[in-house]
Amino acid sequence: MHKHRVVIIGGGFGGLATAKALARADVEITLIDRRNHHLFQPLLYQVATAALSPSEVAWPIRHLLRRQANVRVLMGTVVGVDKAARAVLLEDGARQPYDTLVLATGAQHAYFGHDEWEEHAPGLKTVEDATAIRRKLLLALEAAERETDAERRRALLTFAIIGGGPTGVEMAGAIVELGRASIRGQFNTLSPDDLRVVLIEGGKRVLPNFYSELSAYTLDALKRMGVGVELGKPVSAVDAEGVTYGDRHVATRTVIWAAGVAASPVAKWLGIEGDRAGRIKVEPDLSAPGLPDVFVIGDAASAVRDNGKPVPGVAPAAKQMGRHVARLIQRRIGGDTTPLPFAYKHDGDLATIGKSSAVIDFGWIKLKGWFAWWVWGLAHIYFLVETRTRIFITMSWLWIYLTGQRSSRLITHGDATKTRPLEEVNDN
Amino acid sequence: MHKHRVVIIGGGFGGLATAKALARADVEITLIDRRNHHLFQPLLYQVATAALSPSEVAWPIRHLLRRQANVRVLMGTVVGVDKAARAVLLEDGARQPYDTLVLATGAQHAYFGHDEWEEHAPGLKTVEDATAIRRKLLLALEAAERETDAERRRALLTFAIIGGGPTGVEMAGAIVELGRASIRGQFNTLSPDDLRVVLIEGGKRVLPNFYSELSAYTLDALKRMGVGVELGKPVSAVDAEGVTYGDRHVATRTVIWAAGVAASPVAKWLGIEGDRAGRIKVEPDLSAPGLPDVFVIGDAASAVRDNGKPVPGVAPAAKQMGRHVARLIQRRIGGDTTPLPFAYKHDGDLATIGKSSAVIDFGWIKLKGWFAWWVWGLAHIYFLVETRTRIFITMSWLWIYLTGQRSSRLITHGDATKTRPLEEVNDN
Repeated sequence: MHKHRVVIIGGGFGGLATAKALARADVEITLIDRRNHHLFQPLLYQVATAALSPSEVAWPIRHLLRRQANVRVLMGTVVGVDKAARAVLLEDGARQPYDTLVLATGAQHAYFGHDEWEEHAPGLKTVEDATAIRRKLLLALEAAERETDAERRRALLTFAIIGGGPTGVEMAGAIVELGRASIRGQFNTLSPDDLRVVLIEGGKRVLPNFYSELSAYTLDALKRMGVGVELGKPVSAVDAEGVTYGDRHVATRTVIWAAGVAASPVAKWLGIEGDRAGRIKVEPDLSAPGLPDVFVIGDAASAVRDNGKPVPGVAPAAKQMGRHVARLIQRRIGGDTTPLPFAYKHDGDLATIGKSSAVIDFGWIKLKGWFAWWVWGLAHIYFLVETRTRIFITMSWLWIYLTGQRSSRLITHGDATKTRPLEEVNDN
Repeated sequence: MHKHRVVIIGGGFGGLATAKALARADVEITLIDRRNHHLFQPLLYQVATAALSPSEVAWPIRHLLRRQANVRVLMGTVVGVDKAARAVLLEDGARQPYDTLVLATGAQHAYFGHDEWEEHAPGLKTVEDATAIRRKLLLALEAAERETDAERRRALLTFAIIGGGPTGVEMAGAIVELGRASIRGQFNTLSPDDLRVVLIEGGKRVLPNFYSELSAYTLDALKRMGVGVELGKPVSAVDAEGVTYGDRHVATRTVIWAAGVAASPVAKWLGIEGDRAGRIKVEPDLSAPGLPDVFVIGDAASAVRDNGKPVPGVAPAAKQMGRHVARLIQRRIGGDTTPLPFAYKHDGDLATIGKSSAVIDFGWIKLKGWFAWWVWGLAHIYFLVETRTRIFITMSWLWIYLTGQRSSRLITHGDATKTRPLEEVNDN
């Protein structure tokens, strides 16, 4: 008889936690991901704002699991699930049979019926998203330096962020700092005061999931930094000229989408109807409805807490779900099939608002200001996966803290294998 | 009367050296580059082989010149030169007038009449080239892990480098190390012994510009590392299936071009005929023939040494040329127009062959082996431009030296602003 085969799709926080929690289990694990790397999403905005380089927040999945003998890592693209035969279907026609399937495919940014906005308002989910946004931010400054028309120049120096959650707040603070530090002494026609950052949130407050006092503090801190915060005005149009929200319009060439996400196509694979954001409404034990051998975890799942509220789409939740599923698998192998509902434990909420300011809500304690900022930094260093990254990110932050220099202000394009940029650009 | 206007095109070693050497001159400098960053080319192969990340070898030109008040940096694409009116023409229609023009536009890889090879054999000149090659190398291993056909698998695990100069030698050594370190413990079906690296050189020896004893040592060192070195067999065909050279053929999916470069279109801009590689044959003072106010330096120039040999296309030569032109400009402003020919001083040749082995030829002393490797490393750290980079590259190297882990093994694609990869790949 073969060993119990666990197939995990997705090498994010949830998938990785599942694999690691099964390190000592007598199972054969296959982890499949379209990418070769795990991404530390909480710091991705720092890649987009030139503070960190991509390799500081992403690591090869193979490398992270190299010491675990019962895992096989496969870089491949899943196109479906054959529920009857219990096999995962890959793009190249291969089939990967499973006894237990764990779907940890995460979310992507979603524009809720306005896909045409994406072209003008990229979201931040992948390493490529981050370098593309970095490119957009830095190119806007370069274009502004050469622009002589006052109105066009103002639009080039205006940056709009849609969405007032942690990502939006962190991006707003980081763009102010990147912009001011870049302009200072390095551009002839620009002044740091020309920079305008607008944060647009449809709801009544920023960081809506945080304790209201921390939202108020964050609002103040953003305003002190010079960020224009627009609350209670949902966005109605995004195009090449700017953003319209409520009865207002801001002319800008650079819009960043931090407002909404939708689950990957798991619902389609399983032939189950997803919720509005495409997530699977899972059973209390995180299995898919009617499929006790298929678990859905992390951002792909819609799970409910004891208090009736939804489990938030954050890294700790995905990790807890992964560990829960690993425990269930081990129990089942041992013959124990008693139901074990998932109980989410909320550790807290953190967000940073530029240099030396952050808010933290651990439930039992609420922190704000420079002390919270240090706790935020230490917490993130602690949660990083690799020793090397801990050292390098600490040093990168220290360097920025002491000198103000952001090290990764590179404008790079896509792969250049098929073009010779010099000739192409200069010869026509 | 306006100040003397110096326009420098290109922010590589030559252009940057010119600008810096004019720091105290009473001139108005405009430095124009298509890119926002200066690239430390000698270490670019380490980005391609995942040892360093792009931001460790590239820095914003604005940042490097931030303390120099007489320079304006312009990110823009030059399309021509109006010699009569003494102005540089930019893609967007702008004109940049000059009193002295310095063309430091560098070189790009060239396929000498076989442009169709480029698709299969990318060269290494830009940050994008490096990440594209890194992607190719890492994807080949991923594909090999899944390939069941023995012949196709062998082709996937074979890497060919065309060109036995320093870049080819350094790439060969680095690919062996990257491949073995990546395979070890991280792939289930691959063994480090399956890896095959072939270095193909049309001439009689590797490192043809080095002292012959060092060439012989390098050949031995490459063979000891397991690199197949093929000498005296010019390449006659490159396609998706492999490389044909002399009477032989090697089946491979990954070919890297380190064989030839050609100058950027400066000759065309000036309406002067370039040499076979497109370079301008400059006058002894580095001015373009018949254009005493236009200087051509670095890889764009074909200059001759006192001994009749050509000035090599290396960073120190470009820097010396830049400083020479700066001196000439200052003399001319002072009213001194006596001719001052450029005299190239050859500092030496360096190349590294994997971990703990290098060759150095300083003329008065020749070094090889581990001591040369340490000298090579220290010399490169010394020549790096920024303190931060010195610290971070030293640490990156130390980490690899101590742990064998290459930190930047990311497979990334082009910009993703216009695609939603997850849906796109998984939904079709």
